[in-house]
Amino acid sequence: MPPVRVVLVAPRNPLNIGAAARAMSNFGVSELRLVNPYEVAFREANSAVKAHAVLAAAREFATLAEAVADCALVVGTTSKGHRLLEHPLRRLEMGGRLIAKSGGPVALLFGSEKFGLSNEDMSHCHWLLRIPTREAHESMNLGQAVAVCLYEIVRNPKSKATPEPKRAAKMEDVERLTSLLEEVLEKSGYVNDRVAGSTRMKIRRLIRRMDLNAHDAEVWLGMLRQIRWKLVS
Amino acid sequence: MPPVRVVLVAPRNPLNIGAAARAMSNFGVSELRLVNPYEVAFREANSAVKAHAVLAAAREFATLAEAVADCALVVGTTSKGHRLLEHPLRRLEMGGRLIAKSGGPVALLFGSEKFGLSNEDMSHCHWLLRIPTREAHESMNLGQAVAVCLYEIVRNPKSKATPEPKRAAKMEDVERLTSLLEEVLEKSGYVNDRVAGSTRMKIRRLIRRMDLNAHDAEVWLGMLRQIRWKLVS
Repeated sequence: MPPVRVVLVAPRNPLNIGAAARAMSNFGVSELRLVNPYEVAFREANSAVKAHAVLAAAREFATLAEAVADCALVVGTTSKGHRLLEHPLRRLEMGGRLIAKSGGPVALLFGSEKFGLSNEDMSHCHWLLRIPTREAHESMNLGQAVAVCLYEIVRNPKSKATPEPKRAAKMEDVERLTSLLEEVLEKSGYVNDRVAGSTRMKIRRLIRRMDLNAHDAEVWLGMLRQIRWKLVS
Repeated sequence: MPPVRVVLVAPRNPLNIGAAARAMSNFGVSELRLVNPYEVAFREANSAVKAHAVLAAAREFATLAEAVADCALVVGTTSKGHRLLEHPLRRLEMGGRLIAKSGGPVALLFGSEKFGLSNEDMSHCHWLLRIPTREAHESMNLGQAVAVCLYEIVRNPKSKATPEPKRAAKMEDVERLTSLLEEVLEKSGYVNDRVAGSTRMKIRRLIRRMDLNAHDAEVWLGMLRQIRWKLVS
């Protein structure tokens, strides 16, 4: 992953700046840049839970050109799907991949809460990125938009599930359980003698669908043994 | 996509409830359920920008069992990567796909801001989901966590870029531009006669790498004609 610089252009609410910092810290991105922040006291924002280091190191710039001067790729975010004929517009699913694979430092731009990026801001961008929100409610909260974009950039499509902690039950135990359940059902009068064969198969499949781990198979065996004991006593 | 129900268990901060509602509205998820919310006045939360309908329709439950009773799959979210030996734990990249492909209604559980889900809460879950945050800073803001999870569920890995609005320049214009640039460079004394052939090829490749659209090719032709005119006058 290339270094990613989150650039907030004219952000107004220090809580959003703090929330952006927290999301950056969650996803391992540390370089926050601000262009003309509306509120200068943002460095104390409570919303930057455990991410005050990101806020402390944030750099302020008077112009967007200065904020992105050392970046190799400049990507602007927008909630508008339309009237952007001047720029290529990529959905986040694809744009995030392009960012993750790009070589040099990347500036990821977010406009102000109220107005987004201006046309002037966008003219500094190579292309624009759109989070696939609903057309009827496109505009996201700033901190949430930062979180979603960074998640897409760091997400690993090849990630596997954590190995499931359970050790599968051995088939001899599964079969023992099957027999025991059958026995209990017979003793309970559940099994009709004439259909016993097909019932047995149904029970066998039922037990296998439980996909038991070794521990649970033992628990079940213990419970059924107890039930059998009760039924015959 | 199956119906997804976002279930907030014992949420404390109404601003987070509103932010969750906004993210749900952004991604087209409308069913919000609350189990024992700490703050009853959440329905007025300002953070639910354009999502007050989600808050108005939110349902409150006294127990988690009641909140998930009509769901076919119950997935809990956790920031902890460790000590969860009781449950299969899936990273969001994979877990989100499983949710998107599942048939019945899905309950997606988020614990309180302070404590997350309890072991008792987790016992209602089929499996657990973890957003791939850094180990050193695992815990996300509640509204941001909801946004990231819903994004992963609605994201479309097959989404294409919006067709780029530009119409590619015709090759005859590209070649005209190439010749014109060569001519200007010759007239400027840039081209050394002995290497003119290889320079011409370099220029040809340079122009093709610009991947010009029809409009830009015309603009370039106009600019170079002007330069040529100046050079010979």
